[in-house]
Amino acid sequence: MIQADKKTLQRILDDNRKYTADGKVADYIPELGHANPAALGFTVATKNDGIASVGDCGTTFTLQSISKVISLLVALLDHGPKKVFAKVGMEPSGDPFNSIIKLETMDHHKPLNPMINAGAIAIASMIAGNHVEERFQRVCELLHLMTANTHISLNEQVYRSEKATGDRNRSLAYFMKSTGIIETDVEEALDLYFQLCSIQVRCSDLAKIGLFLANWGRIEGKDSPLVDPCIVQILLTIMMTSGMYNASGEFAIHVGIPAKSGVSGGILAVVPNKMGIGVIGPAIDDKGNSVAGMRILEDLSKEYGLHVFSEG
Amino acid sequence: MIQADKKTLQRILDDNRKYTADGKVADYIPELGHANPAALGFTVATKNDGIASVGDCGTTFTLQSISKVISLLVALLDHGPKKVFAKVGMEPSGDPFNSIIKLETMDHHKPLNPMINAGAIAIASMIAGNHVEERFQRVCELLHLMTANTHISLNEQVYRSEKATGDRNRSLAYFMKSTGIIETDVEEALDLYFQLCSIQVRCSDLAKIGLFLANWGRIEGKDSPLVDPCIVQILLTIMMTSGMYNASGEFAIHVGIPAKSGVSGGILAVVPNKMGIGVIGPAIDDKGNSVAGMRILEDLSKEYGLHVFSEG
Amino acid sequence: MIQADKKTLQRILDDNRKYTADGKVADYIPELGHANPAALGFTVATKNDGIASVGDCGTTFTLQSISKVISLLVALLDHGPKKVFAKVGMEPSGDPFNSIIKLETMDHHKPLNPMINAGAIAIASMIAGNHVEERFQRVCELLHLMTANTHISLNEQVYRSEKATGDRNRSLAYFMKSTGIIETDVEEALDLYFQLCSIQVRCSDLAKIGLFLANWGRIEGKDSPLVDPCIVQILLTIMMTSGMYNASGEFAIHVGIPAKSGVSGGILAVVPNKMGIGVIGPAIDDKGNSVAGMRILEDLSKEYGLHVFSEG
Amino acid sequence: MIQADKKTLQRILDDNRKYTADGKVADYIPELGHANPAALGFTVATKNDGIASVGDCGTTFTLQSISKVISLLVALLDHGPKKVFAKVGMEPSGDPFNSIIKLETMDHHKPLNPMINAGAIAIASMIAGNHVEERFQRVCELLHLMTANTHISLNEQVYRSEKATGDRNRSLAYFMKSTGIIETDVEEALDLYFQLCSIQVRCSDLAKIGLFLANWGRIEGKDSPLVDPCIVQILLTIMMTSGMYNASGEFAIHVGIPAKSGVSGGILAVVPNKMGIGVIGPAIDDKGNSVAGMRILEDLSKEYGLHVFSEG
Repeated sequence: MIQADKKTLQRILDDNRKYTADGKVADYIPELGHANPAALGFTVATKNDGIASVGDCGTTFTLQSISKVISLLVALLDHGPKKVFAKVGMEPSGDPFNSIIKLETMDHHKPLNPMINAGAIAIASMIAGNHVEERFQRVCELLHLMTANTHISLNEQVYRSEKATGDRNRSLAYFMKSTGIIETDVEEALDLYFQLCSIQVRCSDLAKIGLFLANWGRIEGKDSPLVDPCIVQILLTIMMTSGMYNASGEFAIHVGIPAKSGVSGGILAVVPNKMGIGVIGPAIDDKGNSVAGMRILEDLSKEYGLHVFSEG
Repeated sequence: MIQADKKTLQRILDDNRKYTADGKVADYIPELGHANPAALGFTVATKNDGIASVGDCGTTFTLQSISKVISLLVALLDHGPKKVFAKVGMEPSGDPFNSIIKLETMDHHKPLNPMINAGAIAIASMIAGNHVEERFQRVCELLHLMTANTHISLNEQVYRSEKATGDRNRSLAYFMKSTGIIETDVEEALDLYFQLCSIQVRCSDLAKIGLFLANWGRIEGKDSPLVDPCIVQILLTIMMTSGMYNASGEFAIHVGIPAKSGVSGGILAVVPNKMGIGVIGPAIDDKGNSVAGMRILEDLSKEYGLHVFSEG
Repeated sequence: MIQADKKTLQRILDDNRKYTADGKVADYIPELGHANPAALGFTVATKNDGIASVGDCGTTFTLQSISKVISLLVALLDHGPKKVFAKVGMEPSGDPFNSIIKLETMDHHKPLNPMINAGAIAIASMIAGNHVEERFQRVCELLHLMTANTHISLNEQVYRSEKATGDRNRSLAYFMKSTGIIETDVEEALDLYFQLCSIQVRCSDLAKIGLFLANWGRIEGKDSPLVDPCIVQILLTIMMTSGMYNASGEFAIHVGIPAKSGVSGGILAVVPNKMGIGVIGPAIDDKGNSVAGMRILEDLSKEYGLHVFSEG
Repeated sequence: MIQADKKTLQRILDDNRKYTADGKVADYIPELGHANPAALGFTVATKNDGIASVGDCGTTFTLQSISKVISLLVALLDHGPKKVFAKVGMEPSGDPFNSIIKLETMDHHKPLNPMINAGAIAIASMIAGNHVEERFQRVCELLHLMTANTHISLNEQVYRSEKATGDRNRSLAYFMKSTGIIETDVEEALDLYFQLCSIQVRCSDLAKIGLFLANWGRIEGKDSPLVDPCIVQILLTIMMTSGMYNASGEFAIHVGIPAKSGVSGGILAVVPNKMGIGVIGPAIDDKGNSVAGMRILEDLSKEYGLHVFSEG
């Protein structure tokens, strides 16, 4: 199907390239600022029908907030849902990703969900390992398994910049330390969080991560799942309600595919039982989502009937 | 299937009856306060396999917040999504249903979504008709069509009590009038809103409304849809992200069925392409959801694999 | 002193006229929008040394928020501090005058103080009288006594405009009705509030009101006070901490005189034991205070050593 | 006067000792938790009439938030009001002392005033000196001059505990770093802030600091002021509007004396041109103010007519 449809994919890319002009690249660190705002590409990895890439899929970029899905997965594997969700909520938030207000006003000071910065930092503080390096390696190893790409690794420069400019995240973290949400060393949690945000990938990697989740935690060609399907179900649902910052509701309506975006312009999307999609388009809107990237996913959803709520 | 499975349904009811003790009936108006906290029942209306009820399905109750789905549907039929969502957002909110804070702090003062009180009042202000009575009748007529039950009508006493005690809603409405979200007469919008909340139904009515949506806007036995499927898709997605007050995220994870609850203890649930479910259990939790009702839906979801994200 | 100093007063006026260009007239109702932004004038009424006016003191204007001082005074006379402050707080607020947020978040939902809109509406709801007209007359009679000017009365057109556009205030009022802060009829409280805001005065009236308070509730030439000095002390302190909207702290530092401003550009200022000052300058800043008016008060404070904290 | 009145002072102490039972000692660090909740004492240092102490004035305690006045003074001496208030506002806040919400919502993210934690940390970041030790010594030397007590110094144990548990303050600080309010090293600013909070004093020291301010920056017996009186005026006004946490408005009404409290139960009060008062009463209320201490100041104000707004 995919190979046959490469023309369609190319058309969808071409149709949406104009939207790259409607966003701009994140520039809070120089490394992100240097990205090409006109770049656009995506990879689709299907269950039974191969993988196809169109556009600028050679572009490398860092996971940024997309790493929140992976770190949640690892924390759930380490501790199970009960313990994880004792510290972080499951509710979508109408607030910006870096808002601190609800940490003060909410009962128990729990961050609303693992897809906002506060929640993801709390999740990072739970990942098992004797030291930051070991924790980071555990996450990377899972990524290597999911993608069959052992080259996925840290972008050192991005990491150092994130760490140097991460004061708002530091503020969130110390707030959570003060309320008992973070029980371990704050600087270590932040260090791991910044490292996870700085993992460098390509679209094809995201597509394969997506396919891994679409396959309920199975690596293509293997029978037994690496991950309990219940955990995948949690990830998909949280991506659906909270994955696209405070445009998650709108994206769920228009696209209807569980997805997670990052300010690097990447988007990881999962069509359960069918395919994983990886998109890159560094020109983002004021909420942090790739403008053209969202349009591509909307067109794919409409073209192939991928909306989670579809007549059938 | 359903008839054969009536034993299963009864078992699920019996298993969850104990949870009625964990909630309490809403008591801000006397009519709700008189409800029986121990009552529990549900109806399942399937696409091809009939309808089945177990438990206290003779109980009548008012729609309360469940009416928000119906009024959104009517407003979308009247004006189309573009105009409706110019006034009301699509984003889930982490706030309680009656919160006014975001009306002050959000850009453009738009209520976050049509499932919170502010959003639903704004929606009510858009429903077409020459006067409140006509607008109310238009909504009722749609309900009569959906349910084939022309007895569905206003509970006058509940309506008068809602109106007499509705000052928080009045506050929300006048705020939105002051910011231009509501463009028509505020008291008329409120009057209609209170009337819609006070429509009296049974579980079987909710189940049929659910089936109507599960059938993409088609009445059982008729071919042509009454409603554009795109509009149904919007309703289902908003119910999924925002239908269960500020427990919507948790419900989406544990149950995974688009649903809308009311403080009367009713829940309308829709399994697209398969069935509608109506639940009544007046004992609600502090967020406004029927405690035992949510458990029943969770068990149904697990028993029949109804979670929107399921292996298949 | 004052007559001798008229030159100084004139100089202070002249020095500050340029600042009228830094503000703009309120325009949420047409009557305020028609004010002359270049107008500027003030009257000083001293304890033992007569009264002097410079600038555009023939200008009439409505009290707007300055009425909050008078209505608080009447409510305190009617009920005493204990009952009044059971419903409204004494704390300065960092929020804009029409903010609703703290009504939701604060313990007991009490408006923070009587100088913000919410607090003043709650105060209006406590003023004694069989009907709105009688309550309004009671306030006017006190104003007549304070100023020896029985012409002070309602500007009907402003009142009707305030009432027609007062939806944000209506929202505040219904919120307070819903939380029990307002116990009487909401529309009557609002009606009185809008009327009090629409009382028409001149600078000389404000100066005499100020002198009345500077004299601890005594009318010039009479021995026995009309008002318990304890109540005057409360008024002066609240004006000091909260009288200039969310610029009260800055004004207290730079000027150090208890004062209350209105969006009409009027300012009532009180130098205890010395004088009352009335200022008009309709060009206001984004917080609602007369730009040139505040400068005049700062210069008067420095020229005559009127800051409450002064070496001596 | 004072010596003659020692009986009155003793009576005021005795009258209010019962209120020590209405508060409880702060216990977020063990050192504060060990304070004697029943302790109560105060010192009055007058301009021309000597000094008198009654009650438990031998008690040592740490400045805690009282240090905010001293650090503001030093920052104003170092940089002048314009530069200082470019970073920190002058407005009283209706929020708790450690609230972070307004840092996110306010224009320019400026902390509302220097008496709340966020503002005081920003102020600490401005104090001149090559390193934390030097900055701390500069503050101490000023305290030594004011009090003629060179024994005033750091309580090491309190400092270490404050630093170890100061994560909420760390959160405030990093937030301000992220918004550019803090321009220097965050950890150094915090370190100095914790040290300043941990300076150990007795009531008599506070009384002498108060007298220094009452004397407009003059040391008793010396003619030339150490501090520009304009700066003292700023301090007194900010203490008046914002010195008693979110009970500042109420305290201003009932007591009418510029004052600053700390969670150690100390209160520094200044009656301009007349006297300084130091109070200790470790049993504090839920806002952080010494319960009996406030009562003592209210009685002193009434007994001696010290309210800033008094007939005269």
